Amino acid sequence: MNGLSHLDDQGRARMVDVGDKAVTARRARARGELRCTAATLEMVRAGKTPKGSVISTAELAGVMAAKRTADLIPLCHPLALSQVDVAIAVEDALPGFSVVATVRTEGRTGVEMEALTAVSVACLTLFDMLKAVDRTMTIGAIHVTAKEGGKSGAWEQI
Amino acid sequence: MNGLSHLDDQGRARMVDVGDKAVTARRARARGELRCTAATLEMVRAGKTPKGSVISTAELAGVMAAKRTADLIPLCHPLALSQVDVAIAVEDALPGFSVVATVRTEGRTGVEMEALTAVSVACLTLFDMLKAVDRTMTIGAIHVTAKEGGKSGAWEQI
Amino acid sequence: MNGLSHLDDQGRARMVDVGDKAVTARRARARGELRCTAATLEMVRAGKTPKGSVISTAELAGVMAAKRTADLIPLCHPLALSQVDVAIAVEDALPGFSVVATVRTEGRTGVEMEALTAVSVACLTLFDMLKAVDRTMTIGAIHVTAKEGGKSGAWEQI
Amino acid sequence: MNGLSHLDDQGRARMVDVGDKAVTARRARARGELRCTAATLEMVRAGKTPKGSVISTAELAGVMAAKRTADLIPLCHPLALSQVDVAIAVEDALPGFSVVATVRTEGRTGVEMEALTAVSVACLTLFDMLKAVDRTMTIGAIHVTAKEGGKSGAWEQI
Amino acid sequence: MNGLSHLDDQGRARMVDVGDKAVTARRARARGELRCTAATLEMVRAGKTPKGSVISTAELAGVMAAKRTADLIPLCHPLALSQVDVAIAVEDALPGFSVVATVRTEGRTGVEMEALTAVSVACLTLFDMLKAVDRTMTIGAIHVTAKEGGKSGAWEQI
Amino acid sequence: MNGLSHLDDQGRARMVDVGDKAVTARRARARGELRCTAATLEMVRAGKTPKGSVISTAELAGVMAAKRTADLIPLCHPLALSQVDVAIAVEDALPGFSVVATVRTEGRTGVEMEALTAVSVACLTLFDMLKAVDRTMTIGAIHVTAKEGGKSGAWEQI
Repeated sequence: MNGLSHLDDQGRARMVDVGDKAVTARRARARGELRCTAATLEMVRAGKTPKGSVISTAELAGVMAAKRTADLIPLCHPLALSQVDVAIAVEDALPGFSVVATVRTEGRTGVEMEALTAVSVACLTLFDMLKAVDRTMTIGAIHVTAKEGGKSGAWEQI
Repeated sequence: MNGLSHLDDQGRARMVDVGDKAVTARRARARGELRCTAATLEMVRAGKTPKGSVISTAELAGVMAAKRTADLIPLCHPLALSQVDVAIAVEDALPGFSVVATVRTEGRTGVEMEALTAVSVACLTLFDMLKAVDRTMTIGAIHVTAKEGGKSGAWEQI
Repeated sequence: MNGLSHLDDQGRARMVDVGDKAVTARRARARGELRCTAATLEMVRAGKTPKGSVISTAELAGVMAAKRTADLIPLCHPLALSQVDVAIAVEDALPGFSVVATVRTEGRTGVEMEALTAVSVACLTLFDMLKAVDRTMTIGAIHVTAKEGGKSGAWEQI
Repeated sequence: MNGLSHLDDQGRARMVDVGDKAVTARRARARGELRCTAATLEMVRAGKTPKGSVISTAELAGVMAAKRTADLIPLCHPLALSQVDVAIAVEDALPGFSVVATVRTEGRTGVEMEALTAVSVACLTLFDMLKAVDRTMTIGAIHVTAKEGGKSGAWEQI
Repeated sequence: MNGLSHLDDQGRARMVDVGDKAVTARRARARGELRCTAATLEMVRAGKTPKGSVISTAELAGVMAAKRTADLIPLCHPLALSQVDVAIAVEDALPGFSVVATVRTEGRTGVEMEALTAVSVACLTLFDMLKAVDRTMTIGAIHVTAKEGGKSGAWEQI
Repeated sequence: MNGLSHLDDQGRARMVDVGDKAVTARRARARGELRCTAATLEMVRAGKTPKGSVISTAELAGVMAAKRTADLIPLCHPLALSQVDVAIAVEDALPGFSVVATVRTEGRTGVEMEALTAVSVACLTLFDMLKAVDRTMTIGAIHVTAKEGGKSGAWEQI
């Protein structure tokens, strides 16, 4: 046994059998960020630029992407998500934006991938909406910050 | 004029009109990375773990995601891509993996978003295939490294 | 509390948490219509025009669209539908077509949106198949006619 | 010849051959409305309810749906849209909302179906976001208001 | 050079570069069959069973699937199809059904995969609609029968 | 009653009501093959040609397609699959490749269609990756080999 449950004995990729896992309430939270120049951030923060739309478009894209996770990640199980929330905040210190996604389901597998996918697509959407004014932006620091449910129980990291 | 072409005068999000832009050969390259523990990387590098499959699954997921970009990013134009290449390498120095995507089209808009989407989904897929052995991994440093074609011409950054 | 469950305190759009709602049998029915000229309807009714195909194509498009609802409506929850039925009838009185969709699931949220989506896409498909002969058609009167299951119980309107 | 180009001699549904049609600039505009109670509209207009988000979510859903038209309408040709714009306005007189979608392409077929699909899905999304407070809403008056390009030339109706 | 254009020097799967290929009119035709028992075929042929619907549902599924080819086949290029036609016939001699799909585009790559995908999904749909009465059916003999356009020119096989 | 549960009394296609069926563990296995020339097979088997990638790409495409079944087959119910495994083997005797797919769910309907779809798309992907060297290949012998769960119980055929 090699610890990588997505690969069988011969190394063939497959969608692992979760049919015998318990259906439990599962929740995951992921975080990421888009770094841009202070000037770009100022443009979004200032009155002239409709900040609300940039951020709300990206939040919505993240929510919708969470529902497409099993279509995008080859070996992810399809899950009926019961909640998706994506929150983007302006972060002067970066400068840039932070993105936090929370996903919940009642199912047989965790929802980390759904939360990470929501964060990734929200960041890509921010990039898309700002690339005309700043092409040096960087997406990063995407990771799972909390997880609940399933055999491994609750877990958290900053 | 606010410099953000995706938002109209009232701040309404829309897919901007590119109908009057010239059809030219366009190419973009993006880069990103997945950081993991040295132990995880060793497991992938070692013989027991089928490295080929982890990497080739993620490369393929990246290629397929590039074709879904306009479905995921709300205001992206659909484009008939003529080439998509995703290359993943083991990087001992991180430790982790580097992901480079190259995309080409003949069209009216650039393909940075397609390259960035390919990199992001390849990273997410690596994460998915390794999360059973390492849940502290981080996806980051996703940015455009080169761009050619269109009015703005060739451009490069490290 | 503002009564709009899709928007949180700050007005951010999100997919609301239904994880604590009960799984119950839910059913919804929606109705709509496509109005066309009497001449267009006659062409469909008459022998020369293969009416069956126009109607059966639109019915099938409606069924398939119901399964795509969560992909189209940003904040809809994905649901495993247990039944979808779309019935289109020629209505001389309009003149035009009536479309009725019935959807059923065992789940945590209602299926009105699935029924309304089925009706809408069936109407769009009728429009698509007849637009070569009539470009003044109108789609309308799309509404929910009945709903069962969940906390609010059974409900009906004409 | 029966005038219905989507059906062949035996009445079989097919995606008609447009390979010999000229590639021209094509544009279409469609319109529709969601009728609700004055109280619902007031809730959206008033300060407490985040109107911006309801409307911007529906506008974005309409833009994204336009890109999915060929996936939803069985015999529609896939088209590389060069512009999609969806504008929703509060209409006290209805009471309700008006939705106008404008779509543009360089292609071999018109884009009426894309404009109509954008309007329909924007209306469905408004419905979804307001159904918790008003289940008697009706979607209607969806029709093409203008069309340009192709052999039939420019055309308009109110 | 190994003759397999989808794999680069290191054996990495990629979507090959067709950006330098000429845009030409391309057409492909594919064929396949579903074999069933004579009793199943009789049930479809007889009056009681609505044959039209079984066949027309499968034809429509084939047309729609052709448009999804690049989504399903990892390394297929997205193409704007200009025609898709799927014709299913009852074949007493098999006994079973024959399926023929014709696809046309103006593009940089051929459309064999689109024609083969249309045939495959039409056969799967026939199977789905008849499996309640016959679970021993077999799908087979799926192959390309004709191809036109591109550097290799016209080609045909029975 | 005509035995074809997908068609109602008037012959209208619909997604049948499975809401009253029991949720049970269901499994299905399907098989198929791609026949090619011995020379093509030799090229894949030989060292120069990266066989692993051809086969692993097709296996992955099959797994992903299984999750899209309800999107492709008009009247299939959406199901949350708990396992998908696709195994491709080189078969000198054909010559060609055999493809076996195993699918498992906890649900109200069987998963034969998911297994058959996985096999079909894996075969199409093999075809796509080898068509540059062999255009006379044939996909065939696709059938269900085993089924478990539901009212009809276990069943097997070679």
